[in-house]
Amino acid sequence: MSVNLHDSAYELEKALRNSDEYKTLKRLYDEVNADPSSNQLFEKFRNMQLQMQQKQMMGQDISQEEIAQAQIIVTDVQKNEKISKLMDAEQRMSMIVQELNQIIVKPLEELYGSVEK
Amino acid sequence: MSVNLHDSAYELEKALRNSDEYKTLKRLYDEVNADPSSNQLFEKFRNMQLQMQQKQMMGQDISQEEIAQAQIIVTDVQKNEKISKLMDAEQRMSMIVQELNQIIVKPLEELYGSVEK
Ligand SMILES: [Ca+2]
Ligand SMILES: [Ca+2]
Repeated sequence: MSVNLHDSAYELEKALRNSDEYKTLKRLYDEVNADPSSNQLFEKFRNMQLQMQQKQMMGQDISQEEIAQAQIIVTDVQKNEKISKLMDAEQRMSMIVQELNQIIVKPLEELYGSVEK
Repeated sequence: MSVNLHDSAYELEKALRNSDEYKTLKRLYDEVNADPSSNQLFEKFRNMQLQMQQKQMMGQDISQEEIAQAQIIVTDVQKNEKISKLMDAEQRMSMIVQELNQIIVKPLEELYGSVEK
């Protein structure tokens, strides 16, 4: 990869790291991490999400009991202000990363567009 | 999104567009596009790939006949120097985009790492 590409990527990395959105996200993560009960609930939620995704990918059935348990966790998460705020910030960051990607890969899209014609 | 983030993303987009790798990729695309028989074969190959992917995603069987037809297309593609060169350049570009992404999202990975602990 050219030096210019590398340098530009690191500039963007730095801009992301210094953005208000990243700083907010980091603060909210730290707050969840610093609170044992929120941290535990958040990990439970993440594990549940991962298990559900894996079952779906492998075409396995999700039982009524699992659905009921998941709903309890989701309700607990929604009631937890620290986690709710963190998840909102995660979603905003995820949209920013998507927007950045759309900008960066535009030259490639133009290329594919011209070949598809 | 902050102005700084936007500007940095556009700088990277420009660096990508001006990179030797992108210019090579564009030239090879244009060469395939300008040659009717290569262009037609390349589109046939792309459509075949897409169909196979869709069947796999939907859990549909791929027949022996489809496999045989796919193998003929792949052999034709491998024998076509214009397309082979283009596909090599595409692979290099795909690796570059992956590397760029790894650099950019490093701040986020650090965050997730600290929460997983
Ligand atoms: Ca074409
Ligand atoms: Ca933790």
